[in-house]
Amino acid sequence: MKLALIGVGLIGGSAALAWKRAGVVDAVVGFDADAVACAAAGERGAIDRAATSLADAVRDADLVLLAVPVGAMASVLAQVAGALPAHAIVTDVGSTKRSVIHAAHAALNAHSSFSFRRFVPGHPIAGGERPGVTHADAELFRGKLFVSTPVAETHADALAQVEALWRAVGANVQRMDADEHDRIFAAISHLPHLLAFALVAQIEAEPDGARKLGFAGAGFRDFTRIAASSPVMWRDIALANRDALAAELRGYRGMLERLQQAMDSNDAAALEDVFARAAQARRAQQRGFDGD
Amino acid sequence: MKLALIGVGLIGGSAALAWKRAGVVDAVVGFDADAVACAAAGERGAIDRAATSLADAVRDADLVLLAVPVGAMASVLAQVAGALPAHAIVTDVGSTKRSVIHAAHAALNAHSSFSFRRFVPGHPIAGGERPGVTHADAELFRGKLFVSTPVAETHADALAQVEALWRAVGANVQRMDADEHDRIFAAISHLPHLLAFALVAQIEAEPDGARKLGFAGAGFRDFTRIAASSPVMWRDIALANRDALAAELRGYRGMLERLQQAMDSNDAAALEDVFARAAQARRAQQRGFDGD
Repeated sequence: MKLALIGVGLIGGSAALAWKRAGVVDAVVGFDADAVACAAAGERGAIDRAATSLADAVRDADLVLLAVPVGAMASVLAQVAGALPAHAIVTDVGSTKRSVIHAAHAALNAHSSFSFRRFVPGHPIAGGERPGVTHADAELFRGKLFVSTPVAETHADALAQVEALWRAVGANVQRMDADEHDRIFAAISHLPHLLAFALVAQIEAEPDGARKLGFAGAGFRDFTRIAASSPVMWRDIALANRDALAAELRGYRGMLERLQQAMDSNDAAALEDVFARAAQARRAQQRGFDGD
Repeated sequence: MKLALIGVGLIGGSAALAWKRAGVVDAVVGFDADAVACAAAGERGAIDRAATSLADAVRDADLVLLAVPVGAMASVLAQVAGALPAHAIVTDVGSTKRSVIHAAHAALNAHSSFSFRRFVPGHPIAGGERPGVTHADAELFRGKLFVSTPVAETHADALAQVEALWRAVGANVQRMDADEHDRIFAAISHLPHLLAFALVAQIEAEPDGARKLGFAGAGFRDFTRIAASSPVMWRDIALANRDALAAELRGYRGMLERLQQAMDSNDAAALEDVFARAAQARRAQQRGFDGD
């Protein structure tokens, strides 16, 4: 199977390495707007040839993996739509699904040569703070989750093939509705990133911010680790999943208002109630992690 | 030197073990409202004798270490004040300093036999999610920070002796004003705990909260690790450091309001500005950690 890899970052590069190792992909043509990343992907063995354009990359592909930031999906889909072979399957790794499905629907319906039914929306739940193909790892997806979010039109065979590819590299596959995916990841991934960015930005902007940050210990370090993530990638995710994330953020701000009121009125019981419910849920979750 | 250890949890137990190993403490009398903890402290070798009362614990002490939750400091100080030997030094490990200083001032000034000048407010910056004397560790403070927050009245010799005790077990000593201490730790410790508790409580309370939490990955795990901390201890800290924490929380809520407005108005530049300032500061901090 010939893979066209669009975007040769950590996820795309790891997928190419993993699929090659598993023997499900024979040849990889890569495209990235960043020529340095393309060269690194070649050296890393993730791609066999760097394409000169998006159309060149997908022309002979059996499988097209869109592994660009979600903010770039619409533009990339519009540019490749006219060049996609009719038999190919197109899939993606975007962290938000409704926005990518919308972009694919718009781009592919404008080009009768390729059916939107052959687009399989997906999200491998893996990553790390160290981005780029130089950190790519063929084992990145082993034991991790791959979420597919097919729509009513999605071709059952294309969906099954994409899910089989992720299973072949050790991922556990789960299928869900794109709306639910976006709500879930707004709560457990996008909102925590936003909150961590906000905390570091808030402290950094204080007159004694640098001094404060100098006293941070292990708790702060863990809490804010995700604030070292790519600002551009997370700006795009925040906007691509705006509806679900805005709703989560509004709910969270309501919770903070309650806690502020509890402090202002010295309401120890209200504080303890919230803290205790959180600690109980988090400890139960930890037992799940430990039991992994 | 005879140590009276009031509160035989992780921090108090570790301090007793560390000071014994360093040879600066010969005998430890312990008191804890929890008889099971007292027995465990004896088995662990952290205390040599369990006192029958607070007064019994401090009667012959050269050094008294108050290692109880900050919410219990005022009550403990009031109960021991009348029994403290005049030559002793009293110090504490509370995570908030203004509240403990206030409690010590009130309790000790009411008893002429012991001078408030011999109370040295302190805060060793160490801990862990695993509480209790069974996790006590004589090496807990090595390479960690100990912050002393003397007031104008604090006796210079008593201060120097307490700081020397922490240095003897490997801690780096830093002296600062109690107001500044409380502002710094409100920002980098107390607020992150409150935010992590709030996030888990918020998600847990949603109709599909358990399902959402089931999808959490490494980022969420790190972000919310501190939400497994003791609800009672953090309720007390939140109230004991209410002024500084409420101010930090208000500032943070302002930051979240800005981010919500940026999302509502699709303002990518505003989001990226906040995220980029945070990522830059957090990455610089990481280089500091890695250089430790």
